[in-house]
Amino acid sequence: MNNVIKLANRPEGKPQLNDFKFSEEERPEPKEGEILLEAKYISVDPYLRGRMRDVESYIAPFELNEPMESTVVAEVIESNNTNFDKGEFVFGMLKWKELQTSTGNGLNKVDPEQAPLSAYLGILGLTGLTAYISLDKIANLKSGETLLVSGASGAVGSTVGQIGKIKGCRVVGIAGSDEKLSLMKDKFGFDEGINYKSTENMQEAVAKACPDGVDVYYDNVGGEILDAALNNINKNGRVINCGAISLYNEKETPQGPRHEGILVKKTVLMQGFLVRDHAKEFGPAIQQLAQWLQEGKITYEETVVEGFKNIPQAFLDLFEGKNKGKMVVKI
Amino acid sequence: MNNVIKLANRPEGKPQLNDFKFSEEERPEPKEGEILLEAKYISVDPYLRGRMRDVESYIAPFELNEPMESTVVAEVIESNNTNFDKGEFVFGMLKWKELQTSTGNGLNKVDPEQAPLSAYLGILGLTGLTAYISLDKIANLKSGETLLVSGASGAVGSTVGQIGKIKGCRVVGIAGSDEKLSLMKDKFGFDEGINYKSTENMQEAVAKACPDGVDVYYDNVGGEILDAALNNINKNGRVINCGAISLYNEKETPQGPRHEGILVKKTVLMQGFLVRDHAKEFGPAIQQLAQWLQEGKITYEETVVEGFKNIPQAFLDLFEGKNKGKMVVKI
Repeated sequence: MNNVIKLANRPEGKPQLNDFKFSEEERPEPKEGEILLEAKYISVDPYLRGRMRDVESYIAPFELNEPMESTVVAEVIESNNTNFDKGEFVFGMLKWKELQTSTGNGLNKVDPEQAPLSAYLGILGLTGLTAYISLDKIANLKSGETLLVSGASGAVGSTVGQIGKIKGCRVVGIAGSDEKLSLMKDKFGFDEGINYKSTENMQEAVAKACPDGVDVYYDNVGGEILDAALNNINKNGRVINCGAISLYNEKETPQGPRHEGILVKKTVLMQGFLVRDHAKEFGPAIQQLAQWLQEGKITYEETVVEGFKNIPQAFLDLFEGKNKGKMVVKI
Repeated sequence: MNNVIKLANRPEGKPQLNDFKFSEEERPEPKEGEILLEAKYISVDPYLRGRMRDVESYIAPFELNEPMESTVVAEVIESNNTNFDKGEFVFGMLKWKELQTSTGNGLNKVDPEQAPLSAYLGILGLTGLTAYISLDKIANLKSGETLLVSGASGAVGSTVGQIGKIKGCRVVGIAGSDEKLSLMKDKFGFDEGINYKSTENMQEAVAKACPDGVDVYYDNVGGEILDAALNNINKNGRVINCGAISLYNEKETPQGPRHEGILVKKTVLMQGFLVRDHAKEFGPAIQQLAQWLQEGKITYEETVVEGFKNIPQAFLDLFEGKNKGKMVVKI
């Protein structure tokens, strides 16, 4: 038999374990032209929360009582397709199933010699690509500028900060525990860190950590941390709106201070970014990231949860900030 | 004697007539190397409200008990400077004085044959330049796209709309009276108009006027109209934050719905713009605008108030939306 995780309910507010449903199905058989895949690593990501809503967005919502999906690294365990050999590994958007068939459409092969398999869900996958391509397209980082990053110990944020250091910036990270702050500074080379959970006045804390103001703010969280960043932004500052995890579980549109006055006065750029729009640039970006990885110029952290049955809990833990770096589930 | 208008108080909230003070001074005498200027047209603009505050901004605040200033067209009535002849006209940032001396620094000569003198405060001055340069730099207008403009019958907005039509866009304007809507459609060629004062649900009104969504929103006002525009924005939409007149008189930072979720989901660009940052591009921009003006491809509206003593009231009337097109005071 084959284990599957389906969407049981569309959550209101914070998702719960009972929004997911485990079920069993027959072991799938690959038809002519198909391959049989066994999941090895499954990625859980904050953006999946959006797909649990029944609203139009940049990617179709999950269907009720149908399998969830995310990016997955899988091994080819049977092949009826000449493009794939048994024992090869692939990476792509796949269902939360232990076993599944595929025609190979949309899948990329991954080289387990170049980097550990789980890296293809993180630093060499969508999160690393998000950091690299968005900075390249939007931030226009200049040596000596101050780069402020929220979600800084996370998969995207930690890569953003390291690229900032490569570009010669002063890099300040915001995260939710002193342990994460140490990780940022000791492992990822951030210059300074702010623990937003133990800080009462974020605006003052940002001002103190960024004495020359904020030139680029990389926003993974939105909400009051965005407000604090904008209240310290420099003339011609840039904000990359990569995520807004602080708002994802809100039922009503959250209210906050209006930013348009600052945007005009400081001629600030804010630009929303979705890595999916930039698939054509993935090749060269992965090459650059892999090179930096091999040269030891960047590194990564991951939180590996073990076991197919723990995927839903690993997803829920993202919203409690329980991960350090990329959260993946090893099957 | 020479009449002067000074800043008497820093207004809290909406400025009042008694925030200004008239005084008399000796008739100025130009020294060697100086010219004597007689003001002909004085520009009143919403951004001056910001300079009445004692806060750091993109331009220094006005000093209490010192003359106000804005852009002015003036005639050279005496010259001790070989670069200027008596009878020539100049345009620049000058004080609210009937007569004043200048070394000529920062002044540009204007040609009264090319366009009426007041046009150099509007369509060929900072407001026309604002419209042209910001669209050129940020909007990336494509034929067939929908351009939504607020403050649409104003000096900047009406030029923005006309440039949108030249670029082949569907242009929808937002203004505060049916008379302004008629002006937009009949004189400036807008496709559709929304009277925000008589509209209860702006979000629905924008949806109806922009059935294909909003590709570019040109924001002169901020606040709830910005919210309505963003709730109708298309994927990869662009917002030019040119002004936020709805917020300029607020005492506390106004609150509103958070926009960062929309920015991420729709990969929207928001970019603040100040024309002063682009002085190097003024030459070619004025050339293009003057050519369109001569070809009859663009036109302008102005509200001319007569008399030096009416400058403060003309400024206050901006916040009541009493102007159609550029508000200028003829001396």
